[in-house]
Amino acid sequence: MKKLRVGIVGLGRLGKVHARNIAFKLPNAELTAACSIVPAELEYAKTELGVTDVYTDYREMLAKADIDAVVIVTTSSEHCWQIEAALDAGKHVFSEKPLGVDVAQCKQAEAAVERHPDRTFMLGFMRRYDKSYAYAKEKIDQGAIGTPYLVKATGIDPEALVEGAIRFAKTSGGIFLDMAIHDIDLCRWFLGSEATEVYALGATFKHPEFKEAGDDETAIAMYKFANGAMAMVHVGRTAPYGYHVETEIVGTEGTIRISAVPEKNLATVYGPNGVCTECVGSFPERFDEAYLIEMEEFVDCALNGKQPGVSVYDGTKSTAIGYATTEAWKTGKIVKIG
Amino acid sequence: MKKLRVGIVGLGRLGKVHARNIAFKLPNAELTAACSIVPAELEYAKTELGVTDVYTDYREMLAKADIDAVVIVTTSSEHCWQIEAALDAGKHVFSEKPLGVDVAQCKQAEAAVERHPDRTFMLGFMRRYDKSYAYAKEKIDQGAIGTPYLVKATGIDPEALVEGAIRFAKTSGGIFLDMAIHDIDLCRWFLGSEATEVYALGATFKHPEFKEAGDDETAIAMYKFANGAMAMVHVGRTAPYGYHVETEIVGTEGTIRISAVPEKNLATVYGPNGVCTECVGSFPERFDEAYLIEMEEFVDCALNGKQPGVSVYDGTKSTAIGYATTEAWKTGKIVKIG
Amino acid sequence: MKKLRVGIVGLGRLGKVHARNIAFKLPNAELTAACSIVPAELEYAKTELGVTDVYTDYREMLAKADIDAVVIVTTSSEHCWQIEAALDAGKHVFSEKPLGVDVAQCKQAEAAVERHPDRTFMLGFMRRYDKSYAYAKEKIDQGAIGTPYLVKATGIDPEALVEGAIRFAKTSGGIFLDMAIHDIDLCRWFLGSEATEVYALGATFKHPEFKEAGDDETAIAMYKFANGAMAMVHVGRTAPYGYHVETEIVGTEGTIRISAVPEKNLATVYGPNGVCTECVGSFPERFDEAYLIEMEEFVDCALNGKQPGVSVYDGTKSTAIGYATTEAWKTGKIVKIG
Amino acid sequence: MKKLRVGIVGLGRLGKVHARNIAFKLPNAELTAACSIVPAELEYAKTELGVTDVYTDYREMLAKADIDAVVIVTTSSEHCWQIEAALDAGKHVFSEKPLGVDVAQCKQAEAAVERHPDRTFMLGFMRRYDKSYAYAKEKIDQGAIGTPYLVKATGIDPEALVEGAIRFAKTSGGIFLDMAIHDIDLCRWFLGSEATEVYALGATFKHPEFKEAGDDETAIAMYKFANGAMAMVHVGRTAPYGYHVETEIVGTEGTIRISAVPEKNLATVYGPNGVCTECVGSFPERFDEAYLIEMEEFVDCALNGKQPGVSVYDGTKSTAIGYATTEAWKTGKIVKIG
Repeated sequence: MKKLRVGIVGLGRLGKVHARNIAFKLPNAELTAACSIVPAELEYAKTELGVTDVYTDYREMLAKADIDAVVIVTTSSEHCWQIEAALDAGKHVFSEKPLGVDVAQCKQAEAAVERHPDRTFMLGFMRRYDKSYAYAKEKIDQGAIGTPYLVKATGIDPEALVEGAIRFAKTSGGIFLDMAIHDIDLCRWFLGSEATEVYALGATFKHPEFKEAGDDETAIAMYKFANGAMAMVHVGRTAPYGYHVETEIVGTEGTIRISAVPEKNLATVYGPNGVCTECVGSFPERFDEAYLIEMEEFVDCALNGKQPGVSVYDGTKSTAIGYATTEAWKTGKIVKIG
Repeated sequence: MKKLRVGIVGLGRLGKVHARNIAFKLPNAELTAACSIVPAELEYAKTELGVTDVYTDYREMLAKADIDAVVIVTTSSEHCWQIEAALDAGKHVFSEKPLGVDVAQCKQAEAAVERHPDRTFMLGFMRRYDKSYAYAKEKIDQGAIGTPYLVKATGIDPEALVEGAIRFAKTSGGIFLDMAIHDIDLCRWFLGSEATEVYALGATFKHPEFKEAGDDETAIAMYKFANGAMAMVHVGRTAPYGYHVETEIVGTEGTIRISAVPEKNLATVYGPNGVCTECVGSFPERFDEAYLIEMEEFVDCALNGKQPGVSVYDGTKSTAIGYATTEAWKTGKIVKIG
Repeated sequence: MKKLRVGIVGLGRLGKVHARNIAFKLPNAELTAACSIVPAELEYAKTELGVTDVYTDYREMLAKADIDAVVIVTTSSEHCWQIEAALDAGKHVFSEKPLGVDVAQCKQAEAAVERHPDRTFMLGFMRRYDKSYAYAKEKIDQGAIGTPYLVKATGIDPEALVEGAIRFAKTSGGIFLDMAIHDIDLCRWFLGSEATEVYALGATFKHPEFKEAGDDETAIAMYKFANGAMAMVHVGRTAPYGYHVETEIVGTEGTIRISAVPEKNLATVYGPNGVCTECVGSFPERFDEAYLIEMEEFVDCALNGKQPGVSVYDGTKSTAIGYATTEAWKTGKIVKIG
Repeated sequence: MKKLRVGIVGLGRLGKVHARNIAFKLPNAELTAACSIVPAELEYAKTELGVTDVYTDYREMLAKADIDAVVIVTTSSEHCWQIEAALDAGKHVFSEKPLGVDVAQCKQAEAAVERHPDRTFMLGFMRRYDKSYAYAKEKIDQGAIGTPYLVKATGIDPEALVEGAIRFAKTSGGIFLDMAIHDIDLCRWFLGSEATEVYALGATFKHPEFKEAGDDETAIAMYKFANGAMAMVHVGRTAPYGYHVETEIVGTEGTIRISAVPEKNLATVYGPNGVCTECVGSFPERFDEAYLIEMEEFVDCALNGKQPGVSVYDGTKSTAIGYATTEAWKTGKIVKIG
């Protein structure tokens, strides 16, 4: 059995998730190298992942390591040049979202991808690989709801983790770039069309620190799409009940809704508070399986010369929409896209 | 528009529900007389219901009042003779459940009903008139679940009202006669067959007062039916979340379940306890509308010379099964039913 | 017991609902007069409601009928002058929504209400009296979700009734005035603030007749409120599953969602299509009980010299917002409100 | 990192699940040997699992293979002697349920386990490792529902797979031994007590082939436990909607219910049939993750000299109860349990 040899760059929280999946849960992949500027992360690679070939310099890993592919889980601003360098070094590339922090960067990554059509490139829009989302897409493609024409997307981080969000409020790029990229990608994916116009609002009622940092703790946006479809997006950072990702796709013959109750599991407690379902606590918990499935897809594509469903252009488009949404939110005006 | 003139006997909690429905909510009925041995109840009839023709003696009401029909909401042990007396006086009769406290009494009521085939007689199995139960029956009759062959019924009173249950534990006849009559009736109704055998158990883990009074706070029973179908019944008195009536009918082609979440209304709270639905607090709240609908049915039948879906025999049968269940529970043996 | 004598004007589908409630279901009200320009409706009043004092001329009813109050269920364009005439004739007034078809009319009604502070005036925003909505408001007022700052409202008529909507598409005033008035009222009610800005979009993917009539079959709008809160409204006319009214109120400490599943009743069918809940088929079915409760409130207020929670100003404000939304939808621009 | 070297015996449907988990998804285990009497299964081991050390003789694998542990996924009647042989050969042992096909066999396995207290032994009651069941147990141990005193367990195989069940009806040991072992184990686990008495019934309304084979397609049982608690079990083979495992634990302070809707995923479809959730199709789909988690537990215990939560005695007890239930079902009598 042929195995894909993978080098990972970045071993923070999400990097560790990917690394363990590659190292232990994919029969046809092995984690053979790791790169990080954080010593503790390289130590983790050695002791927990059994990876001895470690680097502090990304270009050195590309040059020396015995790898077929690179998995990039670094700071957003590093993604594009790292993608380009890896592709130019002949590696398949998986990069975490967002593709880049501005559209110019994204275009540079697009060019690199186009230069290497025989290399697999995949962007980490893992929600598309979540079983419920994949099921919804399959049902929609089968015609179960007729023509989809409205997406209503909700993504709210838990209040339990709000301190971290406050700490990064000044540098996050604002709530839409920070939080709505996945929702924007889902809207495009389900509607099969591109957003052409956006209007957005924000509000801060609980943690004034967001407002002070020029950000908001909750924000909503409305989109017009090229084919006449529409979308509504609601993102927030203060759900007292957990991590809440919900998406509804309305079509001419029906509607599919995913995760109206962001249930932790299948247990329900009948007690003094009524009938209660505990909620999932964080995105790694919610999308645990999706992270594995997307990596299976990447490895399968890289080994078999295929391209996955999520392309580099999905990265550019979602980034462009994220910027337009941010502009609409900041200016209070309708912003035309593209 | 012809109106049915009704006299009510018994104006306790449930009596008041029926009285208000007759007095104010049924276009073709009027409450023209009331009888009670409790002075405050007659005072209520006068001031709240506007009924001036009141009695302390039931036979006197039958003899003198300007009434076409009698609604009996007295203590269970009085039902049968009051039914007989009313029918013999030429009145239509609605009686609360149970029909009687033993089968001999029930047979006496059956004889009275048979003597007066032109009079309407109805027993207050109001669950059959609840919209959800009526919907389930209609679906089943249309074949939606094929042949029904198993009923799983649950009825649990709220812990909030347990003090009353403890107070009456010695005289209630035991948990099955006190609480399972409706469930037994539903099993018979949905399965279209009669129980032939029962096994039963009880338990008391929270309020030893029940055990001390020879009763139990929770009990379960299993029934074999003449047509080969089966039933499981679970009754209890200590639900911390409210009043819980749930019924499931399993058929060859599907299952219908009613009220797995005994929701108070359509609101759901997403908060620190997860996603919670508050529960209904008591049987009058849960079956509020069913009490009205069953009385509409009674009035319609009485005015138009019809007999309702619930017959006197349903009363006898359910009482007989209740007694057999009680015997099984008390003796720990399988009991054959009549 | 004092009874409020009521005359009704308009006995169409909703008029009949109100009429029956007044005639048969409210102990302290009686329907003593009826007015309609449709002969069949007056015939209905006589034969079904037992009202013999009928009129074809509204002013004649005001002048001659033995009534304390008027219930107005006529065409929207007639509401304001009929309100004014009734108040000036010394009657209490209940009017169906909307208050009027333009703000100028509404102001005229406001003036009439202000001229007669001792008369009860109530507008038929019945959703506020629905048990689930009333429960949500009570919970919110008790602080259950902290400060509410975002309302997400959905109202979709059933595809089964779309023919009627198509027939009236040219004269309905457009989807927002026709369908969003209740949602707009709920946003204001739950947020305790006034909308200051709106952006809106529409789409027609199923029935081109709407587009041809200058209308849309689905539309969405986003609102900014004076206190910084926000709202998203989604209205439509083609739900294949039934009548869907859903509302979510997001607050700093929690969220309340009403009717995510627009269930017909408490029964669930486990069958070849999975686990299914049938949906409610129409607004009269969904809000059956709310229509009765709001009328109880009106009668109670009129008899006891009180004003209900829904004021004439709620009518003007919601109408103004409805117009602003319509302008935003028609022009594609952000519209400032009052 | 130390890895547990595992040999598997039996590579049927469930054997393949375990084999893939050991081979590819557990960082600290490796599948180094495989044994089967079916040539195609050994071919699968070589080509799909990369296991070259294969055997047709179980004792030969024990003697020669480089293994620390054995995973037994053979026919039920082989389990006990294979357990004994492996333990006596110094191996850790994981065996699929049931422990044995009669109590005498189970006792023999118990003796072997007791002879080798330094070897890890685990029985495959994987439901205990399902996240929802584990969550329920943890909540119960924390006191969330007070003292548990009633378990209501349901397990129904899908109609879609009924042909297989019919084929094996004569040799399955009957519906209770075939299907209720997991439910019986869960009752014991949640109640923390042993069953002392059972009554059972069966029914066949859809596929007479079961009755002809001396079996039933649906069966129910009621249990009394030593501590006064109770249980109700319902097993079946013809759910038209999929694979349905549901468990409810009733306690003095609340109830936990697991999987009232056996949902396939988090998507809900709003369409012509109402609001529908598709159901999970089979036990491997439902318990996919639990099979991995239980094997993680086994490997962790074996590597670290621990014993898992599921002991050999759980196997004997559940088998004894299964036999008593079968006797009750066959004889129609109450059966006392050891």
